[in-house]
Amino acid sequence: MKGGKILMNRKEALENIARRLRIHSLMMTTRAGSGHPTTCLSMAELMSCLFFDEMKYNPDDAEDWANDELVLSKGHAAPILWAAYAEAGIIPQAELMDLRKLESNLEGHPTPRMKWIKAATGSLGQGLSVGAGMALAMKLGRSPGRVFVMMGDGECAEGAVWEAANAARLLKLNNLFAVIDINRLGQSEATMHGHDFEAYARKFEAFGWDVAKIEGHSVEEILNTFKSLGKRPRPTAILARTTKGKGVSFLEDRNGWHGKPLKEEELQAGLQELGPMPEIEARKYVHKPKGSPKLELIKKYHFQKNVYKDKTATRLAYGNALLNLGKVNNAVIGLDGDVKNSTYAEKFFEVFPQRSFQSYIAEQNMVGMGIGLSAKGYLPFIATFAAFLTRAHDQIRMAGYSFSNIKFVGSHVGVSIGEDGPSQMGLEDLAMFRPIPGCVVLYPCDAYSTEGCVESMAKHRGLSYLRTTRPATPLVYSKEEEFPIGGSKVLRKSENDLATVIAAGITVHEALKAYEELKAENIGVRIIDAYSVEPLDKENIRREVEETKGRVVVVEDHFQNGGLGDAVAQALCGRAKITHLCIKDLPRSGKPAELMDKYAINAKHIKDAIKEMIKES
Amino acid sequence: MKGGKILMNRKEALENIARRLRIHSLMMTTRAGSGHPTTCLSMAELMSCLFFDEMKYNPDDAEDWANDELVLSKGHAAPILWAAYAEAGIIPQAELMDLRKLESNLEGHPTPRMKWIKAATGSLGQGLSVGAGMALAMKLGRSPGRVFVMMGDGECAEGAVWEAANAARLLKLNNLFAVIDINRLGQSEATMHGHDFEAYARKFEAFGWDVAKIEGHSVEEILNTFKSLGKRPRPTAILARTTKGKGVSFLEDRNGWHGKPLKEEELQAGLQELGPMPEIEARKYVHKPKGSPKLELIKKYHFQKNVYKDKTATRLAYGNALLNLGKVNNAVIGLDGDVKNSTYAEKFFEVFPQRSFQSYIAEQNMVGMGIGLSAKGYLPFIATFAAFLTRAHDQIRMAGYSFSNIKFVGSHVGVSIGEDGPSQMGLEDLAMFRPIPGCVVLYPCDAYSTEGCVESMAKHRGLSYLRTTRPATPLVYSKEEEFPIGGSKVLRKSENDLATVIAAGITVHEALKAYEELKAENIGVRIIDAYSVEPLDKENIRREVEETKGRVVVVEDHFQNGGLGDAVAQALCGRAKITHLCIKDLPRSGKPAELMDKYAINAKHIKDAIKEMIKES
Repeated sequence: MKGGKILMNRKEALENIARRLRIHSLMMTTRAGSGHPTTCLSMAELMSCLFFDEMKYNPDDAEDWANDELVLSKGHAAPILWAAYAEAGIIPQAELMDLRKLESNLEGHPTPRMKWIKAATGSLGQGLSVGAGMALAMKLGRSPGRVFVMMGDGECAEGAVWEAANAARLLKLNNLFAVIDINRLGQSEATMHGHDFEAYARKFEAFGWDVAKIEGHSVEEILNTFKSLGKRPRPTAILARTTKGKGVSFLEDRNGWHGKPLKEEELQAGLQELGPMPEIEARKYVHKPKGSPKLELIKKYHFQKNVYKDKTATRLAYGNALLNLGKVNNAVIGLDGDVKNSTYAEKFFEVFPQRSFQSYIAEQNMVGMGIGLSAKGYLPFIATFAAFLTRAHDQIRMAGYSFSNIKFVGSHVGVSIGEDGPSQMGLEDLAMFRPIPGCVVLYPCDAYSTEGCVESMAKHRGLSYLRTTRPATPLVYSKEEEFPIGGSKVLRKSENDLATVIAAGITVHEALKAYEELKAENIGVRIIDAYSVEPLDKENIRREVEETKGRVVVVEDHFQNGGLGDAVAQALCGRAKITHLCIKDLPRSGKPAELMDKYAINAKHIKDAIKEMIKES
Repeated sequence: MKGGKILMNRKEALENIARRLRIHSLMMTTRAGSGHPTTCLSMAELMSCLFFDEMKYNPDDAEDWANDELVLSKGHAAPILWAAYAEAGIIPQAELMDLRKLESNLEGHPTPRMKWIKAATGSLGQGLSVGAGMALAMKLGRSPGRVFVMMGDGECAEGAVWEAANAARLLKLNNLFAVIDINRLGQSEATMHGHDFEAYARKFEAFGWDVAKIEGHSVEEILNTFKSLGKRPRPTAILARTTKGKGVSFLEDRNGWHGKPLKEEELQAGLQELGPMPEIEARKYVHKPKGSPKLELIKKYHFQKNVYKDKTATRLAYGNALLNLGKVNNAVIGLDGDVKNSTYAEKFFEVFPQRSFQSYIAEQNMVGMGIGLSAKGYLPFIATFAAFLTRAHDQIRMAGYSFSNIKFVGSHVGVSIGEDGPSQMGLEDLAMFRPIPGCVVLYPCDAYSTEGCVESMAKHRGLSYLRTTRPATPLVYSKEEEFPIGGSKVLRKSENDLATVIAAGITVHEALKAYEELKAENIGVRIIDAYSVEPLDKENIRREVEETKGRVVVVEDHFQNGGLGDAVAQALCGRAKITHLCIKDLPRSGKPAELMDKYAINAKHIKDAIKEMIKES
């Protein structure tokens, strides 16, 4: 590398870097034996201009608060992203040849195992929400940085993109830029709009964005366009017309090449066409941002608990707890999907409007923005009806792969919501959250345990889910009681207990009723509140169950599969006989008490199950 | 009812019917003690004009193929829908007072328990997809009918609406009409766009729809607008400016009234303002369609199986089976999310283009349209990567409540997909499908069992899920073998077996390898292919396990919670000691074999687990 070479003009330099990125992308994927080279080739100039001209970032510190951020929403283009990091001197170039190897962090689609990646991508159409969340965080924390989201054209068919477009416009995120690589070809055929620029422009303009249209292989056009960006209080979409496979004649604009690496001889032909690797030290073109104060947030978790005198809905206790947590922790952000008067997130919204964001009825974007906010150091609490969190299952899954620190709250769970009927009943939420490795699932039964659970989950670094109930439930605990993750509480116990009832949430109260009624009949039962569904307090539960002759009734307001019953079955397999009371059919409208009876999860059915079990053994 | 009254002019009649609908809605919700009266009041004229002027339907036959259909996407407005059915003479008016009672089919949100409801609604933003699916079905089956989707303004924030908007435009569904009740108020605050007509118009126009803007309380404007609809080959959005709570001064345009019935004294005041119940026999204004031939589809399920010679991916066998099923059954529809070359749905797409629909990367709408297609008698097969079905979890859940006959196929499951990495791995799909009551979950291990499973699930009326694998797997069965729902296969067995291995899909082959290696060490194990994960073949599994001293290893390419392991634990609790091999951490990129080793689900780990278990007991 000679000094003279570095002095080549900007346009020539960026074109040369683009060529290097192309060559890397082809070689990496051929070496790996899999991957998506052609989608990398279409965005080489865009990446070159972003990483080596437009974006400002400190290559020595992925966490520099002044950094511009790039979200690769089209995650299958990971090779060119890894190549850009290598060219920027962030990772050794030799490491590129480890693409997709088991111990390499250069995975097939980006995950934050590679520290410059703030959020996992690869499920399309999610990056714009993540970028919006990051852009919002950066505005809140006064970062001078901007967020560039590299998107594919195919993924613009995802509704989540338009949820994000709405949100970014409403929040006036003029530090957010969607760069759309319109290369015309999807995986299995042409995209919906092909090279029809105007189709994309109409949509983004209708959603209130500024739009720029450019030829995506012209470094000059790209640079000129970037220069003019973000002047108005709205986000910008840069629509870049490109050619998939650009630079290699037998790949250019051809269907059937998606997700296929070149064979060795094809690679040689491709490299021949691209010419020799240009000699240029790309890292010298990296622009560092001016120093900026680090984001400093007060992250305390111990908050003032409220005093309760009477029956209280756990969803209301959640609202109270969130408000008080917010008073001691200014990283807490509240997100709502227009149900804050039902989840009681409104208590936080009223007192902290500057940290509260109305996501309207758009759960996918709400969760995607949560990933972005978490990635930039904030602590988002996302509350809606549990049933409607299923809308964002894919984003929740990706939050897991992003190692996000998001606290989900699902209210209105189970048939105990009553007359609104099945569409509003969260009956599969435990089954959705339990599988995510490391995700904590808490399900409190009264106001005090709810506040304790909120504190425990806030303190815990990682995905967490709190399940709250619509109707008011009696107080079981005291204000001082603690509710550690992985714990359980034995609520009733005697030496002569003939069976154990394991319950959580609203069914704890049914179990306690059953206990009283059985006691009157001289039948002793043990009652366990398994408020920590995941991780389950296996040790304690096994010990208690052993003392009650291995007889167990699990009772939950959730479908049969995937919930507390499965968790207990796993924990007790080979140690106990279990009767599982749960929602075994598609429920219907009715009063909470009627429904709990019809679907057999109330005190009466608990009693019957216990008697049946005792009779059998 | 006098003949003279019926002769009142059309406008006056429809206004009077609207008033009746308002009165019913208020009374029903007060009687029920819950529900959403104010959102009913804003759409009374729209409903009156639709049901008693514009729509054509045969009140004696909900299944009349010539009927216009109405989808109440804003499902919380159910009371006014029930009221309209009562006014049309479809249900007795007295039944309205049973709203939300446990044994009534007039639920809080509509479900097909009431036979005029074709799809459950109540999770917002889904109705337009359902309507698009119905409109498509009606075009395919040459019905003269049209589909009207009554939407709320708030739900237009859902991305799924825009996925549906794209699809309806591409499919030129000019028999589809979105009627949007723009009443300005959401549940907890004003909607994103309030009464800004133009904001909605810009969006629908950008998505290629025709748009009409009307005052939603003017019967004249509504009638004039409806007259001009659907002339061009595109769908139409009717944007109706309305007032929430219209007709009752203390409810009109007031925040804080969402989802609240009137108290008895408030009801009296409201009824006072609305005036006496107009005397008009609304049913006389119902327009019946002209007779039209019934939809006749050939629904056979037994198809010609293919012959395999060598290792074959189950996803490929799925493609082969679907093609041959399609040859004998013309109700079969193929839907793809631009991965048909990976799921192998392309085989069907190539031969039956007229029954194949590209949904692009928009899984929510793909499933929503499936609900609509199923509701009108078709048999949709919806295939994408299993991971991406999570994107449509809410729609899948609602398909359950809609009693839909949809066949889902999730390919690329588990770590065995290899290097693409975790975002592409279906590791939570069993946990998503198992909880849905009545949903069948099948997971074949070879090409023949895949074809058998396709036949079984096609024949079964109801939601079904088939899990397919990316890599090719050896043949285990013969072409003639049958794979009934709820069955299992004992693949290896001797009298001296010391343990049972329960596997499904790719791990069956690992189990068979472990069997051979253990056999060489004189350790006998029983191998069960639990291809029917839900319902699980509990009886057979219990019997076999009992013969192997209650020792069980479950091995699956799925996260720990919610999958086959939980299903087996439920079935065997108290009967067996189970070691559960599964994916216990967030996986990463790597080769399939490396990943199956790293995450401990291959033959080696099965062997070790068995030896450990034998040693312990």
